Amino acid sequence: MFRIVLDAMGGDFAPSNEVAGAIEASRTFRLHGVEHTITLVGDAATLEPLVAAAKDVSSFLEVEHAEDIVLMEDDPATVVRAKPQSSLVRGLERVRSGRADAFISAGNTGAVLSSATLLLGRIHGVSRPTIGAFFPTVSGRPCLVLDVGANAEVKPQFLYEFGVMGSIYAELAGGIPKPRIGLLNIGEEETKGTETVRHAHELYRKSSLNFIGNVEGRDIFRGIADVIVCDGFVGNVVLKFAESIMPMLKAVLRAYSQKSLLKKVMVGLLAPFLRRALADFDYQKYGGVPLLGVRGIVIIGHGKSSPLAIKNMIIRAWEMHRLRINERIEQALTTPQSALSPTTA
Amino acid sequence: MFRIVLDAMGGDFAPSNEVAGAIEASRTFRLHGVEHTITLVGDAATLEPLVAAAKDVSSFLEVEHAEDIVLMEDDPATVVRAKPQSSLVRGLERVRSGRADAFISAGNTGAVLSSATLLLGRIHGVSRPTIGAFFPTVSGRPCLVLDVGANAEVKPQFLYEFGVMGSIYAELAGGIPKPRIGLLNIGEEETKGTETVRHAHELYRKSSLNFIGNVEGRDIFRGIADVIVCDGFVGNVVLKFAESIMPMLKAVLRAYSQKSLLKKVMVGLLAPFLRRALADFDYQKYGGVPLLGVRGIVIIGHGKSSPLAIKNMIIRAWEMHRLRINERIEQALTTPQSALSPTTA
Repeated sequence: MFRIVLDAMGGDFAPSNEVAGAIEASRTFRLHGVEHTITLVGDAATLEPLVAAAKDVSSFLEVEHAEDIVLMEDDPATVVRAKPQSSLVRGLERVRSGRADAFISAGNTGAVLSSATLLLGRIHGVSRPTIGAFFPTVSGRPCLVLDVGANAEVKPQFLYEFGVMGSIYAELAGGIPKPRIGLLNIGEEETKGTETVRHAHELYRKSSLNFIGNVEGRDIFRGIADVIVCDGFVGNVVLKFAESIMPMLKAVLRAYSQKSLLKKVMVGLLAPFLRRALADFDYQKYGGVPLLGVRGIVIIGHGKSSPLAIKNMIIRAWEMHRLRINERIEQALTTPQSALSPTTA
Repeated sequence: MFRIVLDAMGGDFAPSNEVAGAIEASRTFRLHGVEHTITLVGDAATLEPLVAAAKDVSSFLEVEHAEDIVLMEDDPATVVRAKPQSSLVRGLERVRSGRADAFISAGNTGAVLSSATLLLGRIHGVSRPTIGAFFPTVSGRPCLVLDVGANAEVKPQFLYEFGVMGSIYAELAGGIPKPRIGLLNIGEEETKGTETVRHAHELYRKSSLNFIGNVEGRDIFRGIADVIVCDGFVGNVVLKFAESIMPMLKAVLRAYSQKSLLKKVMVGLLAPFLRRALADFDYQKYGGVPLLGVRGIVIIGHGKSSPLAIKNMIIRAWEMHRLRINERIEQALTTPQSALSPTTA
């Protein structure tokens, strides 16, 4: 029995996309014979009629009332204290108390991160929970970059653990055997970069992870690594920069099309074509990203998550639960004889 | 009289592009009545006939023989000791001894950086020399991002000085009055980011620079800042990532064109068009970037610098000399009552 909690008030299009995604996920689970309950946390008066309308799956869905909503502008650090009756905090409480296995939100990322860390605590052996993001690559297979903002300042051990968690996630959830792990740096040589990165390089070299060494900014799109590890400052800057490529291309083409009628016609032809060719580069496609390292399964979605994205997040959470990813992380980071531990060298 | 030294053996296409660029620059100077001497340092037997062939300007060009060449794989930190007879070291020696005003190389960037810092020393008031790079923006005006690799680890004061140097450069060489300076961070709020960045934010806030606050990765292409300051680790990662966008687009379109004949025809039709629309995004267009903060004018070019890029670097060096950029930097960082000093607040 898989029990998941959905912050029904989190996203920009909440609760309609959240409810629609939950209904679709429930149908998929039913089709595949997965026993489940999806708890939607939020304003009961709004949610109950929406849920009741989906007669075929309404018995798998339940509503938990929450008075309050965490807003995008709320301070992440104080949400648990300031808004204990919010759908976010109430939802996480359900996981903490063992009444649910997983939690999903398309709300304020920082608030989910800090509230989940505070309420659920860290997996034994994990110094800092981390958030990753999928980058498309020319190889067609996405690359998981982590951390992308949870930890602006890191120690070598944190960087090492990000790689362990990312590797387990890529292997189990992504189906990639022995994921290739790269350490983001400013040169290929192991003497490059900051002291922290050089030390992390040593930890990786001594481990039995599939460590391919340093990778550079130009390697992210090349698909030479399945997992790329960096601190949350550089990861966040690169992620937001990457997300700006498509809007930049659009703006440049729009400006160019205004130069002449021929250019306008050509851009008109080119735009839909380019959009299809670059479909992988639409970051919304990847939906949610896992918060790795907390005691419980937490997936954070884009604020603009579509019903499909919500559905995919719910199914991904189920996979993480089924594959016991958190147990694997704990095992890898606490067992000295673990194949993934740096102490085996 | 402007005296410039060119490392004629530095680039991937040396010495032919170097010599061709020098000849073109000399013709431009002559046309505008700029008194000048361009010294090409490198293998005399190769260089002399090339220079002599340009009869109209050969009297403005001279050759200084250098036995040795710094290679891309040479260790930057030891070049001065290991290869004292290289064109790079001999060229810089000419600036150090006062026999030249400026030095240009399209060679090993790290080697130019560390040799120039060692041989020329720092401008009074400068803690760390820095290298910037121009990023195209949707506004059409490039943004100078610095540091992009000279300083992987920084202190708040370094970040502040990068902004002072970048601002002076953008104002004098770029003709931008009161350049807008942004501090690269992972959020807009001043409480965001690392302790170093938060402290740098304070230094900027107290200064009379045109500081627009924190900017994020997504803001680089937006053209909301003329100068963006960051440490050399994140700057280097973002620069190399940005340089990989065009090759990535090419690879994605190539793969897409192989899916059907129609797609192949469409890509063939649209590719040259896209290339023109994105001409600003060709990083080679910007040619060299200044090494700011050393006692002398040093411009570092892309390894693949064309003759036009070499010519533009020589002319840019002349502008920096004429505008006394280094004197302005020294003044800004040493005079307490300077309009650009943080101590005026």
